[in-house]
Amino acid sequence: MYTMVGTHEYRLPRKVTIEDVTLRDGLQSEARLFSVEEKQTIAEGLVAAGVKRVQIGSFVNPKKVPQMANTGELFRRLPRGNNIIYTALVLNESGLEQAADLGIRHLYMAISATESHNLENNHCTLREARRRIERMITWAKGHDIIVRAGIMMAFGCSFEGKVPTERVLDLAKQYQQLGADVIDLADTSGMANPRQVFELVSLVYSETGQTPLSLHLHDARGLGLANMLSGLAAGVMLFDTSLGGLGGCPFIPNAAGNIATEDTAFMMNEMGIETGIDIPALFPLTHTLEELLQRRLPGKISHLPSPT
Amino acid sequence: MYTMVGTHEYRLPRKVTIEDVTLRDGLQSEARLFSVEEKQTIAEGLVAAGVKRVQIGSFVNPKKVPQMANTGELFRRLPRGNNIIYTALVLNESGLEQAADLGIRHLYMAISATESHNLENNHCTLREARRRIERMITWAKGHDIIVRAGIMMAFGCSFEGKVPTERVLDLAKQYQQLGADVIDLADTSGMANPRQVFELVSLVYSETGQTPLSLHLHDARGLGLANMLSGLAAGVMLFDTSLGGLGGCPFIPNAAGNIATEDTAFMMNEMGIETGIDIPALFPLTHTLEELLQRRLPGKISHLPSPT
Repeated sequence: MYTMVGTHEYRLPRKVTIEDVTLRDGLQSEARLFSVEEKQTIAEGLVAAGVKRVQIGSFVNPKKVPQMANTGELFRRLPRGNNIIYTALVLNESGLEQAADLGIRHLYMAISATESHNLENNHCTLREARRRIERMITWAKGHDIIVRAGIMMAFGCSFEGKVPTERVLDLAKQYQQLGADVIDLADTSGMANPRQVFELVSLVYSETGQTPLSLHLHDARGLGLANMLSGLAAGVMLFDTSLGGLGGCPFIPNAAGNIATEDTAFMMNEMGIETGIDIPALFPLTHTLEELLQRRLPGKISHLPSPT
Repeated sequence: MYTMVGTHEYRLPRKVTIEDVTLRDGLQSEARLFSVEEKQTIAEGLVAAGVKRVQIGSFVNPKKVPQMANTGELFRRLPRGNNIIYTALVLNESGLEQAADLGIRHLYMAISATESHNLENNHCTLREARRRIERMITWAKGHDIIVRAGIMMAFGCSFEGKVPTERVLDLAKQYQQLGADVIDLADTSGMANPRQVFELVSLVYSETGQTPLSLHLHDARGLGLANMLSGLAAGVMLFDTSLGGLGGCPFIPNAAGNIATEDTAFMMNEMGIETGIDIPALFPLTHTLEELLQRRLPGKISHLPSPT
């Protein structure tokens, strides 16, 4: 029964980058609308704590997603410099041009790996979504924009269940050929498991060579950090996270959304992997969010009596 | 910056064994004393759900740990057969002989890797503790008992901080030479991180050859499942867990103790690793414990609307 002996090396990178997505993925489904001042406080707090990539919002229809309506105004207020990268999500050409006009040089764009989720989320077929993102990436690369191109539902789909690996590989290769700077695999449904993360990341790397991969993981079923660890072991060095793990459906008590930024930085730090983040400096930001939202967020380390 | 590409294999075992320690590590620090009937319900529920190893309690001073006073009576009531293994903790020769007299054939015994924790927990020096466990293992092996010998505070000590690796290796070698059947590394303080787990397990395996290792991990800082994954990748196939993650200090709100049995079985199952456990059959047991203890436990999967 006990025949397996671990002898292989545990190769982990020396440093990783955390992109905090609190202001986008965290706030986009909250009933409470955050003012531009409130968002600015959080963004500046993140930067002060050493977070180098902050996703500040998205350029989408303000009638459908009013939570994101002040993204442009927020960007104009934020101080530049210190190698801080502000990013935003765009889902169509109009949003892309708006963001580009404002001078946002790092954009995240994504389509879903499945027909059903594209129809639900983007109101178009997978085929139409692929054509649109092809035009978007081409336009962006022609306008000096750094593109992170994402595959939503890469690890399983809430509507369709299993997602064919070939579909994900095919999309990743398309992104690479179009010149995407980073390819993102998003566990939109929170269905990934650690073995799958390792295997899919390894497979995509073997097909797309040196184009870096990032992971957008959801902690819906508690496997978030274990999935992240697998991604790390498979060579991923950029991860999306949010303060307190904000981002789960607010109507499911204790359901986790993203992995908490502070928990991620803590795990990395414990393993001797640099993030550049002052971990306790994130705690007041999480606590501020909890006060504003009037509920406790799932992130762990900010609630421990003596976290480090 | 993005130069690491994961190409190494992710070697995971096909099956693992979960030893549920709810009735011992879970209950030993609860103010509420569980009756033998209540314990029996939980033990039988675990067995019915497919758990093959159940740690039913410890044989320690009933004046100091009244929670464990009915362990012998519980053992006498439990049905035998179906390859179910009931285990118990013993910390001295008197407890060992008591357990042996009752016919418990699988015993867990442990000392701490640090001087301070042995003094605190076992009221003796490390040297005395080593001599005692040497006598205990020798006696047990002479009486046809399967011995799992543990090293508490193997990953860090609440009193002393870092624990020298040589100390852990030295204890593990001593256990092996004495004929221990399984060597257990216990993260008593919850201070382990995934890199450390992988490295320490690999090192111990390289020193002790084919003696199987087990891991007793605490989820104090949220890294439990990630640590378990690392142990798994390093070749561990036996893990201690408890229903709902019971075992944390009841005076720290939301502090996690062990890793939840149901969350562990879920992660393994998602990765295609057999545990033999019917996961939803564990949920009512966790919910029963929560009712009896009148608080919510940290385990996640039993609280999700649609967990699998």
